[in-house]
Amino acid sequence: MDNPSLLQSMLDSFASINGSKILIHGGGKIANVLMKQLGIEPKMVDGRRITDEKTLEIVTQVYAGLINKGLVSQLQSRKCNAIGLTGADANTIPAVKRPVKEVDYGFVGDIDTSLINAKTIQGLIELGLVPVFAPLTHDSKGSMLNTNADTISSSLAIAMAKFYRVKLIYCFEKNGVLSNPDDESSVIEKITENAFADYKAQGVIHSGMIPKLDNAYAALKAGVSEIVICGPGAFSTTDFISGTSIQL
Amino acid sequence: MDNPSLLQSMLDSFASINGSKILIHGGGKIANVLMKQLGIEPKMVDGRRITDEKTLEIVTQVYAGLINKGLVSQLQSRKCNAIGLTGADANTIPAVKRPVKEVDYGFVGDIDTSLINAKTIQGLIELGLVPVFAPLTHDSKGSMLNTNADTISSSLAIAMAKFYRVKLIYCFEKNGVLSNPDDESSVIEKITENAFADYKAQGVIHSGMIPKLDNAYAALKAGVSEIVICGPGAFSTTDFISGTSIQL
Repeated sequence: MDNPSLLQSMLDSFASINGSKILIHGGGKIANVLMKQLGIEPKMVDGRRITDEKTLEIVTQVYAGLINKGLVSQLQSRKCNAIGLTGADANTIPAVKRPVKEVDYGFVGDIDTSLINAKTIQGLIELGLVPVFAPLTHDSKGSMLNTNADTISSSLAIAMAKFYRVKLIYCFEKNGVLSNPDDESSVIEKITENAFADYKAQGVIHSGMIPKLDNAYAALKAGVSEIVICGPGAFSTTDFISGTSIQL
Repeated sequence: MDNPSLLQSMLDSFASINGSKILIHGGGKIANVLMKQLGIEPKMVDGRRITDEKTLEIVTQVYAGLINKGLVSQLQSRKCNAIGLTGADANTIPAVKRPVKEVDYGFVGDIDTSLINAKTIQGLIELGLVPVFAPLTHDSKGSMLNTNADTISSSLAIAMAKFYRVKLIYCFEKNGVLSNPDDESSVIEKITENAFADYKAQGVIHSGMIPKLDNAYAALKAGVSEIVICGPGAFSTTDFISGTSIQL
């Protein structure tokens, strides 16, 4: 969503969804830009950010400040009554600092889905509000924690499934999961868990898409009704125009 | 509140207040630090910040990100169920970009108190939440706006007076309004509007304290019940230990 016109398209689609909804966003690329301007080199292990104290300050600024309030004000201009949140706000998503094993990830938060305060989030939705979550949680001891946006998405979807029929939409720059990464029209319409195993074995699905799909199957098994991976303009009030449906 | 131990003292006091409450914070000094690190010189006219596009990005990061989430997570660690907000969130404080007269202040928002969505804020409070406001509003057209924290405080106090008996506490590094700036024990116990005129004429009250008190008298006339200016540890569940009471 770093592309401004794709972002506008996504926000138009999102604002037009009828019914209760939640937006969860990331922001790693923009955080990297600020880090480099401040002379700090981002440190990643297996695509996950090592979050030291200074990095935590920067991602808190970028995710909860710049990006979250940019999205909230843009949604407000579309008459979508957005309220920006982190997991610290209203204690919606408590987490624990990841224990140090081979890698010390620093101020990174792991979520226990059963501890998410879904009732409070429901209360906000019932006030007519649209929660917009930055990828941050907190340790209940006074510190913010950095948490992967995909993880927050599937965890929130599972937690909200207690109260709602939940459809989880992963929205990114491609039109869905592609069988050929160079061909935007090669969207795989549906991926069952068995097909996923085959695609992985064949190398069609690889790298960052694997944890996304692992999370997706876990969410389906935990009560989420529907999951789709699609492009920014591909969802609307009626139905999905295109995208990949994830099914058990 | 740049002093960490004064901040902890203020948060302890704030968390201990019984009943419905709202915290409003500033953050100009910390924004200046980040601006200088990024090679941008803060521009001020009469103590007010000129907010160009880049400055707006930085204050949004610092106020709504770093400072707001720092306060929220610190309050959460004290079992105070804080929720961080800007005026864009839940459209709580709509504003208009200040018209250009002698000075172009840029992305600075002026508030019409009657347009504050006090009912929504009341809804959050009734969910058991404690709103923590960053000094930012929005133009309802997709842009955040920078707004003075004292102005937000008195405007919110007036708006909430429709629903609550409101006590407005201005908390800063001194123990109250001092008759002698070098003597921390020279706190003026009570300042009526007539006394304020005398203190101004004598030069006892000057510079930044004048707009603060102007706002305070306007708030008292618009329905706010009590106003106190005090130090960070000077308020509690019971009564004010010390400070200056502002009275009509």
